[in-house]
Amino acid sequence: MENPGYCSGSFDGLHHPSDDDDDEMVDIAGATLDFSTTDDVPPLSSGGFEEYTTTTGSSSSSSSRAAGMNGTGPSKLVDPLEDPLPGLGTYEDFNTIDWVREKSKDRDRHREITNKSRQSTVALLHSVSDAFSGWLLMLLVGLMAGALAGGIDIAAHWLTDMKGGVCLIGFWFNHEHCCWTSNETTFQERDRCPQWQSWAELITGTSEGPFAYIVNYLMYIFWALLFAFLAVTLVRAFAPYACGSGIPEIKTILSGFIIRGYLGKWTLIIKTITLVLAVSSGLSLGKEGPLVHVACCCANILCHLFTKYRKNEAKRREVLSAAAAVGVSVAFGAPIGGVLFSLEEVSYYFPLKTLWRSFFAALVAAFTLRSINPFGNSRLVLFYVEFHAPWHLVELAPFILLGIFGGLWGALFIRANIAWCRKRKSTILGHYPVIEVLVVAALTALLAYPNSYTRMSGAELISELFNDCSLLDSSQLCGYKQPTNTSETGAGNSLADRPAGEGLYTALWQLALALVFKMMITVITFGMKVPSGLFIPSMAVGAIAGRLLGVGMEQLAYYNHDWFIFKGWCSPGADCITPGLYAMVGAAACLGGVTRMTVSLVVIMFELTGGLEYIVPLMAATMTSKWVADAFGREGIYEAHIRLNGYPFLEPKEEFEHSSLAVDVMRPRRADPALAVLTQEGMTVGEVETLVESTHYSGFPVVVSQESQRLVGFVLRRDLLISIDNARKRQEGVVSASQVVFTEHAPAQAPDAPPPLRLRGIMDLSPFTVTDHTPMDITVDIFRKLGLRQCLVTHNGRLLGIITKKDILKHMAQIANRDPDSILFN
Amino acid sequence: MENPGYCSGSFDGLHHPSDDDDDEMVDIAGATLDFSTTDDVPPLSSGGFEEYTTTTGSSSSSSSRAAGMNGTGPSKLVDPLEDPLPGLGTYEDFNTIDWVREKSKDRDRHREITNKSRQSTVALLHSVSDAFSGWLLMLLVGLMAGALAGGIDIAAHWLTDMKGGVCLIGFWFNHEHCCWTSNETTFQERDRCPQWQSWAELITGTSEGPFAYIVNYLMYIFWALLFAFLAVTLVRAFAPYACGSGIPEIKTILSGFIIRGYLGKWTLIIKTITLVLAVSSGLSLGKEGPLVHVACCCANILCHLFTKYRKNEAKRREVLSAAAAVGVSVAFGAPIGGVLFSLEEVSYYFPLKTLWRSFFAALVAAFTLRSINPFGNSRLVLFYVEFHAPWHLVELAPFILLGIFGGLWGALFIRANIAWCRKRKSTILGHYPVIEVLVVAALTALLAYPNSYTRMSGAELISELFNDCSLLDSSQLCGYKQPTNTSETGAGNSLADRPAGEGLYTALWQLALALVFKMMITVITFGMKVPSGLFIPSMAVGAIAGRLLGVGMEQLAYYNHDWFIFKGWCSPGADCITPGLYAMVGAAACLGGVTRMTVSLVVIMFELTGGLEYIVPLMAATMTSKWVADAFGREGIYEAHIRLNGYPFLEPKEEFEHSSLAVDVMRPRRADPALAVLTQEGMTVGEVETLVESTHYSGFPVVVSQESQRLVGFVLRRDLLISIDNARKRQEGVVSASQVVFTEHAPAQAPDAPPPLRLRGIMDLSPFTVTDHTPMDITVDIFRKLGLRQCLVTHNGRLLGIITKKDILKHMAQIANRDPDSILFN
Repeated sequence: MENPGYCSGSFDGLHHPSDDDDDEMVDIAGATLDFSTTDDVPPLSSGGFEEYTTTTGSSSSSSSRAAGMNGTGPSKLVDPLEDPLPGLGTYEDFNTIDWVREKSKDRDRHREITNKSRQSTVALLHSVSDAFSGWLLMLLVGLMAGALAGGIDIAAHWLTDMKGGVCLIGFWFNHEHCCWTSNETTFQERDRCPQWQSWAELITGTSEGPFAYIVNYLMYIFWALLFAFLAVTLVRAFAPYACGSGIPEIKTILSGFIIRGYLGKWTLIIKTITLVLAVSSGLSLGKEGPLVHVACCCANILCHLFTKYRKNEAKRREVLSAAAAVGVSVAFGAPIGGVLFSLEEVSYYFPLKTLWRSFFAALVAAFTLRSINPFGNSRLVLFYVEFHAPWHLVELAPFILLGIFGGLWGALFIRANIAWCRKRKSTILGHYPVIEVLVVAALTALLAYPNSYTRMSGAELISELFNDCSLLDSSQLCGYKQPTNTSETGAGNSLADRPAGEGLYTALWQLALALVFKMMITVITFGMKVPSGLFIPSMAVGAIAGRLLGVGMEQLAYYNHDWFIFKGWCSPGADCITPGLYAMVGAAACLGGVTRMTVSLVVIMFELTGGLEYIVPLMAATMTSKWVADAFGREGIYEAHIRLNGYPFLEPKEEFEHSSLAVDVMRPRRADPALAVLTQEGMTVGEVETLVESTHYSGFPVVVSQESQRLVGFVLRRDLLISIDNARKRQEGVVSASQVVFTEHAPAQAPDAPPPLRLRGIMDLSPFTVTDHTPMDITVDIFRKLGLRQCLVTHNGRLLGIITKKDILKHMAQIANRDPDSILFN
Repeated sequence: MENPGYCSGSFDGLHHPSDDDDDEMVDIAGATLDFSTTDDVPPLSSGGFEEYTTTTGSSSSSSSRAAGMNGTGPSKLVDPLEDPLPGLGTYEDFNTIDWVREKSKDRDRHREITNKSRQSTVALLHSVSDAFSGWLLMLLVGLMAGALAGGIDIAAHWLTDMKGGVCLIGFWFNHEHCCWTSNETTFQERDRCPQWQSWAELITGTSEGPFAYIVNYLMYIFWALLFAFLAVTLVRAFAPYACGSGIPEIKTILSGFIIRGYLGKWTLIIKTITLVLAVSSGLSLGKEGPLVHVACCCANILCHLFTKYRKNEAKRREVLSAAAAVGVSVAFGAPIGGVLFSLEEVSYYFPLKTLWRSFFAALVAAFTLRSINPFGNSRLVLFYVEFHAPWHLVELAPFILLGIFGGLWGALFIRANIAWCRKRKSTILGHYPVIEVLVVAALTALLAYPNSYTRMSGAELISELFNDCSLLDSSQLCGYKQPTNTSETGAGNSLADRPAGEGLYTALWQLALALVFKMMITVITFGMKVPSGLFIPSMAVGAIAGRLLGVGMEQLAYYNHDWFIFKGWCSPGADCITPGLYAMVGAAACLGGVTRMTVSLVVIMFELTGGLEYIVPLMAATMTSKWVADAFGREGIYEAHIRLNGYPFLEPKEEFEHSSLAVDVMRPRRADPALAVLTQEGMTVGEVETLVESTHYSGFPVVVSQESQRLVGFVLRRDLLISIDNARKRQEGVVSASQVVFTEHAPAQAPDAPPPLRLRGIMDLSPFTVTDHTPMDITVDIFRKLGLRQCLVTHNGRLLGIITKKDILKHMAQIANRDPDSILFN
């Protein structure tokens, strides 16, 4: 696999271009955009920001992080001769963190601060500020993400309008702003003010006629291609991680995996810019998923401001969980839905404290966004809907039908998209991502322009489809025949069902074509090397289908008031069917089918309408959709992409249903050579080095003796190598013949022997063990709940083998008849 | 401690009156109310309902439960000679369940069904019905709880009105219903229809004058005493568990503890009836907390309909978690808030699947309740609020002030209430619960009647305080001076701030008195032997304080428009302060201070108003309130009551902050005799029996030999006793001299030796172990996350000791300088 790319590609090349390793650097204010020397730019204010982790293995950095090892379980018994070394207790790229240790480390830190706080006022203040730093961080994340989301909205709006024309009083105005100042136009023609000129008007001087149409058409395609080209080039050149929606990777990161640079500064900058470009290019993608990534980048960068979060991978993931909530909150203006999304869909470890903080951050973000007011309507939500008519029980049938459609489409989409992405990875297609994006953008623009429903942006389309028709509505979708007897309709907003007119029929045809187009193009769009979200395209498909069904139902009811199913609740002149509600239910069903969200989806939709009334239709459709889609495969699109990319992600939702035992999964297998172990005394430095070099294991159990195989502890390869390396350099007399000692007291030695190397301090004295008879379902449960990296297997007190997360994932792949080698990382 | 009672008393008497053990019996339809023989009433349809667990230790029941042991981890290696015995794998009363085993058992069951489903169509149907049984159960729980809540609402409404008078056209009508049919009355005097007569009118013929007042007063006290007496007597006589709010106990049960009968049929019936009586008696208590208990009872009883839930304690707790959500959903009409309440406050183990199902059940319940329409306004929520004016940033200051008040009151309330309950437990007061209730009820009625704000029910009071004044409002609270220039106020609902009039000043005085009264009386009311919730009284206190502050602010703003803090947003004639909003914020703050709820509280309040606008004030107040209250003690009222009662509850929210190691907590301590262990071979039945009898441990580790102390497995006392008992009775030749064998293959024996007793089948082959150096914070984490009962401690592969949940709780109590013996159960 050459050139696999990063989006829906694999991460085979573990050594990335230097500009990936940027998550350690924080220089928010006034960062120089010098892309050539990003690797070792020192932090602007080196006093406040310290580097956190070593990059690519070497351990040559500040010693500030060494404090992280103080007071952890093992180091309580640390050899007093030995100071904690830099690099101990940190992780390499593409490795899994040890949740238990990280959390324990944080508790130790907290304990230390609490103890100190009793001694002096300064320490007390430090303790208080430490306690509130979490809230401050949440506030900052909310503010930053809200502001960025507002900026993205405004910029995308402006660039999208740019495809159609330009504002004469200032090119930086979008269409709506441009015409606000105009007072010549009537209410009906608000968007046709003289200040705003289409490209045809500007170039040819006329806005009518086939020639003008062609000029506009070409300009539309030109801009679309330009934006798409800029987006893909920027991503390719500066931040390969900025592509895609980012949610599969964030799920993996939150589960404890480390991908350096994925939430870094460059990713944030490039993703923000390219997201605007990609959305503006008219491609069938949304900004909602990438906003989650953007919010997580903000959180990760802001984490560097606080020692508590900078130095602890577990604590940092709590903040990232909250950031995911913030992302959805600003995407839809739905803070509660965002928190539930984070809880249900993204997060792995979500303590209740985080729930409350997430909610706070989500609210701050939502209100920041509202004060920026990018939609110009001071509404908090993306699609504000207000329905007037209640729904009737009979309507549950079409709602469930929409659920079935959503489920089928979701399952189909996932299969088609994964097949396409697999093809991209394995064929020549993957070699030319720029050309791929340009071709798709050209195709999209070419096909989308003639149809007004595909020409408008996805969000606008959904907004229009959700909308309930009022009498004054000039939209084609509301092209009903005017009622002959106007006195029959009330003066209020409530409208009677009316027969479809010319306009509506045209609209229906266009919508049907748009449906087919959207369904096709989204499959090949998601997974390209530009930032691309799935929420809006999925919702658009569902909203179109729902609206079509809704209008159909409405007409059916209008012409057949006397059918027994309509009798009693749908008399002539009554407003009984709301096509906008059908669109909303359809959108929820399709989004549910694709992502398999449940509660969070319903709550997000509920926050759009604010009426508990409509929860039942939404719930019926979402439930049906999930069941139908699950029947074709239990994975949502994010899980499917995680699997496609081979991330080591242990799905917390699915139960392990097989009846194997720990002994079936552990290594070494029966035919393999025995497990590589260290003994607590009696091995020399040279022997240890030989053992480490001859294997690729990331850790070694320490036993009492080779004969007894009684477990003492576990030591990590990385820590072992760093310690030996350091001892050889600094500690006098440590040579290859020196004994390595893991016991508390050094054994008696010959007087002429070189001094021993005491390594008890780096040994984990409380490794997790299970017995060989432990059912795998319990073992998997332990791994999930405690966030383990590895677990040792014993039989009657003797060490027998080891199970790593990767072993479990491989075993699960084998059971599912998949290639166990598709799990790429450890 | 004699006669400790059940509410806020301890459970010292492990042998309860026979009518407690009723959770096995399901006879929903047509249960005979014969209280004398409740212990062994056979289920009405014995085919469908089987008994689940043995009562009080004996193992003499149907063998249906034995299937529960099939296919569990250990029993995979079960001796083929030995059939699983009845009683194996079940729990005794006041014991903790083993979550890991229970979940594993369920997975085995599921696996079996899935495997079978491939073989025949019937099995496939069974598998499908099994998969949907969870949803069906949720539907039933929602329907039943919704219906019960509706019934309780209607009955309580009727009985409450009964205290004031009676309806002449039918005594079963409440005041409002009675006057609906009347068309003589005007809009203003809707509630003074001739059909409804106060007791004075009925008895003396006049409704005016001091004599009538006294008659009404006396009748009010009479009814209050009667209802209170009935409530406490019913609770005492038939269902001691029906008292209190039930939430502390439900939290404990959900964490894995077993309290037989707590969620049984009698508790349900008695709690439902007495809740109505207690609420109607005018005592300062609410029905919201008890509704959670009622919903959990419904769920527990309905669980018996489905094998999946009847036989598995872990699965049943998932349903109970959902039921807690249902309870809050019907109490406030807030399904999302209910789910979050269950997640945040009550539940221990809450998988995501449960989240979705809880949400479904909560919705079903809310809509069932709405279709019953007990409030007669077809609103879903208990307190429907609609505010018209936005709030201003400056108002955050009074909101935070309310938060501080709420926090202070919460902390004070918890201390005072716990002190009072402790007094009740330790002094003569606890011996006369009936008299206590009567005295408090008399006191309440005596003091409450003269003040119209305390005379009305808590819910009515809150409703009135939340309400925004409109021009037509006749309530005293809206007794503003009429504006001189009426044209200034718009025609809409928006009202300008106005000067307070006579009526309002009277109302404020009454409210201030009501505040003092409520604060006092609630402290002694909560914890009495009647069903009593805290939500409404807490909210009432906060709402009064909030309304007072709100009116104060309003008048301040009215008379000082020119102050710089009011400038710009509060000009004369504008409607700038909404006292109702202050009441709501105050209610949230006080409830937050008492219960320490956060997200769920804000969401419940949000669902009441439906406007995201008001989330920020609510959040500011709730956060402040929680911080202030936490500064005085981190426990909420429920945790405080759990601790008071000594339940073995391992708080999942609080971190274990001490730096002890597993070796410091485990038993045996250094001075104690060695751990009682069994060897895997070589012990005789007699020796084992002696060992078991000489100790009180609930389980014994099995080791290879006394010398090596290498761990093989763990066997439960109960299982061991049942197996030996059974073998002695049924298996030929098993005598005291028979060897007990835990190995896979029986060892060679002398030919004349009695046949060995093979017990590998009952041994848990995968006991959890930690090393002696494991920090206790990690150990506590493991206990919490995996739901362990006990954990073995090893050192270098040798068994060293055991840690049980109780050991941890005792250790934590010791650290906190509390009496470790306050932890009562294991």
